[in-house]
Amino acid sequence: MDIHAQKLQNREKENVQEWIEWLSSFGSTKNEGVTRLLYSKSWCQAQQALQLKMEQYGLNTYFDCVGNLFGKLPGTDAESPVILTGSHVDTVVEGGKYDGAYGIIASFIAVLRLFDTYGYPKKTIEVVSFCEEEGSRFPLTFWGSRNTTGAYDLDRVKDIKDKDAILFLEAMKKAGFDPAQYQTPIRNDIERFLEIHIEQGMVLEKNKKSIGVVTHIVGQRRYQVRIKGESNHAGTTPMMYRKDAVVTASHLIAFLTNKAKEIDADLVATVGRMEISPNVPNVVAGEVEFSLDIRHHKAEVLNQYSETIFSEFKKIAEDLQMDIQVSQWMDVSPVSMNGELVKDIRNIAAQKNLTFQEIISGAGHDAQVFASNIPTNLIFVPSQDGISHNPKEFTSVKELEMGIDLLTEVLYKLAY
Amino acid sequence: MDIHAQKLQNREKENVQEWIEWLSSFGSTKNEGVTRLLYSKSWCQAQQALQLKMEQYGLNTYFDCVGNLFGKLPGTDAESPVILTGSHVDTVVEGGKYDGAYGIIASFIAVLRLFDTYGYPKKTIEVVSFCEEEGSRFPLTFWGSRNTTGAYDLDRVKDIKDKDAILFLEAMKKAGFDPAQYQTPIRNDIERFLEIHIEQGMVLEKNKKSIGVVTHIVGQRRYQVRIKGESNHAGTTPMMYRKDAVVTASHLIAFLTNKAKEIDADLVATVGRMEISPNVPNVVAGEVEFSLDIRHHKAEVLNQYSETIFSEFKKIAEDLQMDIQVSQWMDVSPVSMNGELVKDIRNIAAQKNLTFQEIISGAGHDAQVFASNIPTNLIFVPSQDGISHNPKEFTSVKELEMGIDLLTEVLYKLAY
Repeated sequence: MDIHAQKLQNREKENVQEWIEWLSSFGSTKNEGVTRLLYSKSWCQAQQALQLKMEQYGLNTYFDCVGNLFGKLPGTDAESPVILTGSHVDTVVEGGKYDGAYGIIASFIAVLRLFDTYGYPKKTIEVVSFCEEEGSRFPLTFWGSRNTTGAYDLDRVKDIKDKDAILFLEAMKKAGFDPAQYQTPIRNDIERFLEIHIEQGMVLEKNKKSIGVVTHIVGQRRYQVRIKGESNHAGTTPMMYRKDAVVTASHLIAFLTNKAKEIDADLVATVGRMEISPNVPNVVAGEVEFSLDIRHHKAEVLNQYSETIFSEFKKIAEDLQMDIQVSQWMDVSPVSMNGELVKDIRNIAAQKNLTFQEIISGAGHDAQVFASNIPTNLIFVPSQDGISHNPKEFTSVKELEMGIDLLTEVLYKLAY
Repeated sequence: MDIHAQKLQNREKENVQEWIEWLSSFGSTKNEGVTRLLYSKSWCQAQQALQLKMEQYGLNTYFDCVGNLFGKLPGTDAESPVILTGSHVDTVVEGGKYDGAYGIIASFIAVLRLFDTYGYPKKTIEVVSFCEEEGSRFPLTFWGSRNTTGAYDLDRVKDIKDKDAILFLEAMKKAGFDPAQYQTPIRNDIERFLEIHIEQGMVLEKNKKSIGVVTHIVGQRRYQVRIKGESNHAGTTPMMYRKDAVVTASHLIAFLTNKAKEIDADLVATVGRMEISPNVPNVVAGEVEFSLDIRHHKAEVLNQYSETIFSEFKKIAEDLQMDIQVSQWMDVSPVSMNGELVKDIRNIAAQKNLTFQEIISGAGHDAQVFASNIPTNLIFVPSQDGISHNPKEFTSVKELEMGIDLLTEVLYKLAY
């Protein structure tokens, strides 16, 4: 019996709650949140501690050249492709303990339990702790998974900086991943990717379900809408002579919100940011800019919706003789999870008497990066009150364990 | 013949355009605007230069203890009350050359021309350059006129500071008006106040009129409206589960705007300032605060309107289970100008073949401070494109002269 197998057999009992707390200690904040940004000190500590724990528990570990950490349970079939499972280790600023972290820990625990019960799998399983997904330090997202698929390389980041003007490549080097040593870490040996994650919404909780079997990850489009009216004296300008950008923005927002509800129950449209100019109580606002974020799992619904509202915007601009400019600055296509495995996951959940439902992910996840290349699936556990990206993020141990239980069985089906 | 009369007779010819330019040189900015804040260096220079010019042209001048400058053309009837005419010398930050300044210069010129034609009046006429009206340095308005009527005294300003944390009383002392010397500058000898001012709106221009005979100055009420919803993830929160403060604000603003148009053509309602929280594109806004400024010349219309919209706000808050708080932070009553003199001014304008109309002032003016105590009137000349509080503020020399011409005749009627 090799050293890894000895470790795997003699390991201490894992405890999901303790491990979540332990991982959250790297980057913990005074508000009981977690801030663990790509290539920061707390990020380095977390990845190194994860590597050490994986080694202690008998996995073969290695980092790729951008800082993705892999922990391997080798398959008995040396030629077989890899089943990859995991999530991202980075967090937003003042984030919670579960987003990303749970997916890494759940995958790690599932693999340990599989070995306990069944020994080595036929196909190699790798647990991954992706270096970056959130885009919370540098203005890019999915650096970890997009390197793994080959969508990104150093060219993508050579000019970008964080808010302290530290170059991406400098930060990377300082964290021990010297860009000079970069060779594309693209992986062509991965057969499937499987991720488990907290929902970050309230659908499962509202529907009293323990498991969400994700069928699609939405496409996202983001726009900036700029309304140019006329800034005027609030007392001396009769209503009929005004070109009030705040009033026009209000009409557009009311319209686009109603239209989103009307077109499809799964469509979401959000105006989260508004800037008013000059923004003083006694002056009619001459200019308003607002953001518009729209998401749906079908490109044709996004097309239909955006065409409908922007043609109405155009009409309103003409009617009011005001200038309304719309510019798009993000376009992420929707993706489908592997349909056959969705069915299998449903069946496994049913056999285990877990309450579950199919669900669409409204947030982006590493899974979406893989989904257009290889069969990919995503499983959700509930988020209390739908809260995420916040120190209050919470999922009960019972729900965390149900997720691990399901994931274990799904991995068994895929790798044994 | 006394020294004043000699000066009055031998004076240089006045030129309104030159005098406007000259006064604007005190506090002129690199953007060709004027910034002349209460008790600042440029303010001191302007008041001193005005005093000197008034003296050179034969008026008896004096400052009261808060820095209002008076230039007197004494009446032959020593017992007669005073006809006061003028406006304010202070400006907003980056204001124009006409707001306030024109009223001082026009009154000054009118008095000179009256003396040319008719000699000394029966009743004393005083030209006033009020120290402050705009509220642009310290958080209070009408410091000049409200001291003259006795509405304000030192108590009102003892704790207030400008944005550089300079105490009002310090600034006052530094400008040469030592608060230790303060004795109420209340004036009980004033029979009437008459002000001429630029319209600061576009009504006269749109209607092709040279003169606005003001019948009322509007009442103003200002409110802060605070909407508390729920901040949520823009992707994972279905539309039906949202308590989106931006969407609710948009409904309220659309509603209050339509209702204002519906209730009365003279009613204006303005949301000029909005603050959104957290104000990021991919988060449903949990909180919005907006300002609401409403104005009309009849208190009952303001009452009816505010009751209508706030009871609807309450209903909306209940329907949406969101918290909507309304707090009022300004309440200025509407005032009427002296009705008989309005008729006389109309008649005089008609005799002079000036195009004119009755008009409601949507902006506040020194005239409103006097109007509840003594017969008070206000005359407008047009503002090009309705622009004011801006370096682009402009009124043609022809229109400025028509205003002076009218003012001169009205003063003749009142004082001779």
